[in-house]
Amino acid sequence: MTSSPTLLLGPGPSNVPPRVLEAMARPLWGHLDPRFLDVMDETQEHLRHLFGTANEMTLPLSATGSAGMEASLANLLEPGDPILVGVAGVFGERMCEVARRIGAEVHRVDAEWGAALDATEMRDAIDRLEPKVVAFVHAETSTGVLQLVEEIAAAAGEAGALTVLDTVTSLGGTPVDLDRWGVDVAYSGTQKCLSVPPGLSPVSFSDRAVALVRKRERPVQSWYLDVSLLAGYYGGNRAYHHTAPISAIFGLAEGLRIVHEEGMEARAARHREAGRYLVERLGDIGFEPLVDETVRLPQLTTVLLPERVMEDGEAGVRRRLLAEHDIEVGGGLGPLAGRIWRIGLMGDNARPDRVDRLAAALASLLPGR
Amino acid sequence: MTSSPTLLLGPGPSNVPPRVLEAMARPLWGHLDPRFLDVMDETQEHLRHLFGTANEMTLPLSATGSAGMEASLANLLEPGDPILVGVAGVFGERMCEVARRIGAEVHRVDAEWGAALDATEMRDAIDRLEPKVVAFVHAETSTGVLQLVEEIAAAAGEAGALTVLDTVTSLGGTPVDLDRWGVDVAYSGTQKCLSVPPGLSPVSFSDRAVALVRKRERPVQSWYLDVSLLAGYYGGNRAYHHTAPISAIFGLAEGLRIVHEEGMEARAARHREAGRYLVERLGDIGFEPLVDETVRLPQLTTVLLPERVMEDGEAGVRRRLLAEHDIEVGGGLGPLAGRIWRIGLMGDNARPDRVDRLAAALASLLPGR
Repeated sequence: MTSSPTLLLGPGPSNVPPRVLEAMARPLWGHLDPRFLDVMDETQEHLRHLFGTANEMTLPLSATGSAGMEASLANLLEPGDPILVGVAGVFGERMCEVARRIGAEVHRVDAEWGAALDATEMRDAIDRLEPKVVAFVHAETSTGVLQLVEEIAAAAGEAGALTVLDTVTSLGGTPVDLDRWGVDVAYSGTQKCLSVPPGLSPVSFSDRAVALVRKRERPVQSWYLDVSLLAGYYGGNRAYHHTAPISAIFGLAEGLRIVHEEGMEARAARHREAGRYLVERLGDIGFEPLVDETVRLPQLTTVLLPERVMEDGEAGVRRRLLAEHDIEVGGGLGPLAGRIWRIGLMGDNARPDRVDRLAAALASLLPGR
Repeated sequence: MTSSPTLLLGPGPSNVPPRVLEAMARPLWGHLDPRFLDVMDETQEHLRHLFGTANEMTLPLSATGSAGMEASLANLLEPGDPILVGVAGVFGERMCEVARRIGAEVHRVDAEWGAALDATEMRDAIDRLEPKVVAFVHAETSTGVLQLVEEIAAAAGEAGALTVLDTVTSLGGTPVDLDRWGVDVAYSGTQKCLSVPPGLSPVSFSDRAVALVRKRERPVQSWYLDVSLLAGYYGGNRAYHHTAPISAIFGLAEGLRIVHEEGMEARAARHREAGRYLVERLGDIGFEPLVDETVRLPQLTTVLLPERVMEDGEAGVRRRLLAEHDIEVGGGLGPLAGRIWRIGLMGDNARPDRVDRLAAALASLLPGR
C-alpha cells in the first residue's frame, strides 16, 4: 500500500491539507482532559462562526454527515408529526426515508433533478400542510444545485415550523448564515469544503429546537444522537456521554483554523473562481454543465457527458482516470447515473491548478478531438 | 498546544502506537477507490479473526462504541419485544436505557457493582421470560469485572433468544470467541485494547441476526445503523451508503495489523501479566483491588482508594497526577464515584514500565508512607 496523493475531485472526500493530517497524528489526550476540552471549545466556536449562529448546541457529532441528518430529524420529530421535505436529489430523498422510519407523516415538494426547489411552491405547501418541520438541502451533492434558503425558511418560520437544513456540501465553500436565515437545525460533513477526513458531522441546534427536544413526550429513540443528552458534554459541564473521537477532533480543529485564517469571504470567492474556471476548461473538451448558471454550485459541478464518453462506458473512463492519472471524479446517481459526472473542487482543492491537471488528463484519455 | 505524550491509563482512550498515528496521517483515497476497499476487506477479515467469528457482517461502524451498542439493540428489537439485560455496572444500565427508547419490554437481572452476573440467575430469568434478546457486558468498564459468557449464551440459545455481547473493553485484550460461545451480535470500540483512537465501533452480526433484521415488520428506525442497509457497502457490493471515515479506517487497519502480528494469545498473556503487576505494585502503596481475583479484568483494574487519597479529595489527586506527571487515570462512576479509581493497561499500555511510571508518580504525590 503506497501513499499516493490521489487527486480527489469527486463529491467527497476532498484532499486534506498536510497540517490537518499532521494534527490527526498527534498523541492523544483523554476526552475529559482540560487541554482536549479547550480544543473542543475552540472547535465549537469556529463551527458557530462558520454556521453563522450563536447556538450553544453547535458541535461535531461523532459520526458522518448521514448521522447528522438522522440526528436533526430524530430529535425534532415524534411519530405522527408532519414534515415537509423539499426533494431535488438523493439527499432530499434520504431525508424522506429517515423521517418515514421515525414514523413521521412525510409530505414532499419535488423539483426536477438539476433544478432548485420553487420557493413559492414550498410556501404554498407550508401554508396548506402546517408541518412541524420543513427540511431541505442547501447544496445538493447529487445534482450540483445551490438552493436559496431565506425565502423558504421565512415561510416556515411564519407558519411556526422549524427549518432543518442540509449543509453537507455547502459549509466552508458557500456562506451559511443560519441565524439570519432563521434556520433552526443544520448538519454538515467534514469531508467536503472543510477538507477534513470524513467521520464527523458538524451540527447546530437552536435553543428553540433544544427546548422542544427537552419537552418531548417520548425520548428520542437514539440515545447516541439525543441532543438533550449530548448537551451534558458539549454544553459546558463536560460530563461523560460517549468518548469523543479525539484524533478526528484534532483534525477538524486544525481544518477550521485554516478556514478561519483564510476567512469565509475569500474562501467563497476562491470556490466561485475555481468552479467558473472548471466549467470553462471542460466546456473546451465537450463537457457541458447540467445546471443553470444561476443555481450552479461552484464546489460541485455536474457535467453532461460527451457522446464518446458514454460510448466508451463512462465508468471505464473514470476507472482509467483513477488508475492512470490518479484522479477521482464521481459518477451520477439515480436518474442521472451514466449521464453525468460530479466534479468536486472543494475546500483546499478549489484551485485552478487542480482544474488544469484534470483537463490535461481528460484530454489525454479522450484524444483526437 | 503541545504534543505531550500523556500516559493514558484511564478507562480509554489508551495510547496509540506511532504506526497507527502515521497511518491516519496518510493522504486519503476515496471510499469507493479499489485500494481503499482492499484496506476495508483486510480490516473486516482481521476483525472476524479477533471476534472469533465467520460472520460476513463484521465491520467497523462509523461511530463510537456507544453507537455500536445502539446498532446492536436497534436492529434486533422492535417495540414490545422482550429483552433480558444483565446489569452489573454503567454499561448494562445503558443497554436498558437504549432498549427502553426502542420501546422494548426491558427485564433485568442485577449483580452488585464489582461482581459478575450469576449465570444460574440469568438462566432462570431466560427460561421464565423467554426474551427475544439476552444482552450483557463481557468486560464492565465501570467496575473492572470480567463476565464469563459461555453459560449464559448457551442458555439464551437453548431458549431461542439472540445473545448480544458488549466487548468494548475486552476486544484485543481478552480472548473473544463469538461463534464458539454462540453469541449472535457483538460490538466494541477502538480506543481500549486495540490502541486505536476512538471513533469507530467494530460490530459483528450473525447471518441469523441479519436474516431477522431483513424480516422485520417495520424497518430499523435508524437508517444510519440499519445492518440490512450497511450490508450494501460492507457485504461485498460496495455500494454507496454513507461515506466511510477513511483516515480512521487507515488507523484501525494498522492497529489490527499490530494485533495480528503479536497474536491474540501473546497479547492476552501480556495483559494478564501487566494487570497482575499493577495490583502488586499499587498494593504496596495502599490501593487494594475492588474485584475478586477470579473475575478481575487485567486491562481495567478498579482499586479502592486509601483513606488519605479520599481525604485529599480523589479528583484533586487525579488532577495533580495529570498536571504534574502527565498521567491520566479514571475516577469511579455511579455508586463507586469517589471510592475507586479505574486504571487501564490496555493494548499497547499493558507493559510493566507503564506500571512503574504510575507507581513512582503516586509515591511522589502521596509521600511519607
